[in-house]
Amino acid sequence: MPKVLITTVPFGDKSSLPLEMLEEAGIEYLINPLKKKLTENQLAELVSESDVIIAGTEPITEKVMAQSTKLKLISRVGIGLDSVDLIAAKKRGIKVSYTPGAPSPAVAELALGMMLTLLRSVHISNIQIHQGKWHRIFGRRLTEITVGVIGMGRIGTHLLRCIKGFDTLPVLVNDIMPNDELSREFNLKWVTKERIYKEADIISLHLPLTHLTKNMIRREQLLSMKPEAMIINTSRGGIINESDLYDVMMKGHLSGAAIDVFEHEPYTGKLAEIERCLLTAHMGSMSIDCRTQMEVEATEEAIRFLAGELLESEVPQAEYDIQSQGL
Amino acid sequence: MPKVLITTVPFGDKSSLPLEMLEEAGIEYLINPLKKKLTENQLAELVSESDVIIAGTEPITEKVMAQSTKLKLISRVGIGLDSVDLIAAKKRGIKVSYTPGAPSPAVAELALGMMLTLLRSVHISNIQIHQGKWHRIFGRRLTEITVGVIGMGRIGTHLLRCIKGFDTLPVLVNDIMPNDELSREFNLKWVTKERIYKEADIISLHLPLTHLTKNMIRREQLLSMKPEAMIINTSRGGIINESDLYDVMMKGHLSGAAIDVFEHEPYTGKLAEIERCLLTAHMGSMSIDCRTQMEVEATEEAIRFLAGELLESEVPQAEYDIQSQGL
Repeated sequence: MPKVLITTVPFGDKSSLPLEMLEEAGIEYLINPLKKKLTENQLAELVSESDVIIAGTEPITEKVMAQSTKLKLISRVGIGLDSVDLIAAKKRGIKVSYTPGAPSPAVAELALGMMLTLLRSVHISNIQIHQGKWHRIFGRRLTEITVGVIGMGRIGTHLLRCIKGFDTLPVLVNDIMPNDELSREFNLKWVTKERIYKEADIISLHLPLTHLTKNMIRREQLLSMKPEAMIINTSRGGIINESDLYDVMMKGHLSGAAIDVFEHEPYTGKLAEIERCLLTAHMGSMSIDCRTQMEVEATEEAIRFLAGELLESEVPQAEYDIQSQGL
Repeated sequence: MPKVLITTVPFGDKSSLPLEMLEEAGIEYLINPLKKKLTENQLAELVSESDVIIAGTEPITEKVMAQSTKLKLISRVGIGLDSVDLIAAKKRGIKVSYTPGAPSPAVAELALGMMLTLLRSVHISNIQIHQGKWHRIFGRRLTEITVGVIGMGRIGTHLLRCIKGFDTLPVLVNDIMPNDELSREFNLKWVTKERIYKEADIISLHLPLTHLTKNMIRREQLLSMKPEAMIINTSRGGIINESDLYDVMMKGHLSGAAIDVFEHEPYTGKLAEIERCLLTAHMGSMSIDCRTQMEVEATEEAIRFLAGELLESEVPQAEYDIQSQGL
């Protein structure tokens, strides 16, 4: 009987459909018994005998893969691949698939909610009133400021769709290549990242974590932003250097930051000391509908694979190329 | 020299333009020296000798008006008129004007930010991480749920414009009269308030406080909502009965509430005990641009009036009719 290790938690929580699909297909499964993000060593202990991992963002390294001679598929629940050593997987003949479309609407809605919250200091006023303090705080509106989006893939594009009703100024956007089709749909200015840092009042990151984006925003980039600027990261921890962000904010730079993703999760770091930092627990994809969709898609890949069928959402060669350039 | 009492605070804080306008027109002014919302008695003491009040939401009652024989205009910074005794003003020949359009975009953006925050429990996760706790909370998306809007005036309409990019389900809306023009612009269902209470997953109120809306949402209405429903009030305190809201939420009913306006402000009540209550300090109109616009418009009315010119934004007869029916 084939065995699937489900490492991502929660799984099958809001909809039992993916678990029912595995049962119907006669596949044995084990859900991460530690119920939190696994370390490399914990995963290495759990993985032996598994044919497939239905994976979260825990590190699936060479060392982990070496623990299971049977492992033949890593099916990621989500879009990021920074946690999977794709090169090691390829060498061992382990296929990797993912669910790149499913999380987009949920992440984009979270990012917009964070923009509107930061702009009006809702998070600060909420904490103050819960502490018995009343102070009316001035804010700004999305249509009066310059919005910058770095990364115009599925999520960045969905975010722009969400704010289409707002009649904003031209949004400053950056990606590897300008996209003419998007320029026809939205009011965009394709500019360099450096220009976004300098000119935007609020910046939202929608990028994968790769060797190109790791530590992309350090002290220098943060200090090049306007003193009242705000930054939002719902993509991956490690893109903004957390220690640099802490330092510049403690010195009064930036009027707010919203961080959903961290270099080490669960996060217990110092940004929690800063009231104007809005912090959430990697909840970008955690809407019931998107999460269910991601779990179902990743489970379908596992079932297809174990039935000897073709995968439908295998990771494209470009992702291997990025990693082989040295993440 | 004519005298203007400016009771609303802050005033002239982010833009000194309204103060400069008064100075240029040779008008003497006094800004509320207590720097917080005045009580009836405090206002009664300050008002004597004033020709005009540029007013916030403090109670401008018969008793207050009786303290100044010179008072001839109340120029409200904002849209709500529940704080002004219009009937007493009319009897005394005191004109009342307001700035009904200026706050709309700011209030609508705040309401949308609160919707997205409540739906994803951003406020709860933020408090948890600031306390060192990490818990990934499931949420819902705006396009997957039923949104209900009670009050389809300027602000309710602007809110719908903001969410136009979202491709939501038909929004359940209620107002005194269905508006066909809005039905052509948006995907709406005009229904009773009772149906909104029963069917909506998130409800946003955009109503004036009148004898018709005071205590409109009490225990009975709250309990008729879905157990997981959420409610947002950025309009006026007193429309939702705060004590009933506290009771039903303490018993586990409703999955969230966002309250920006309170029966008594500054608010120091018990809703602050409830973590899933998102509370802000009457900040609906507090975006720099809208607030400046409101202050300028209200100041322009004062200057016009004192120059013997026609008012441009006098309160319409309908508002007097509503109050004479017994607020």
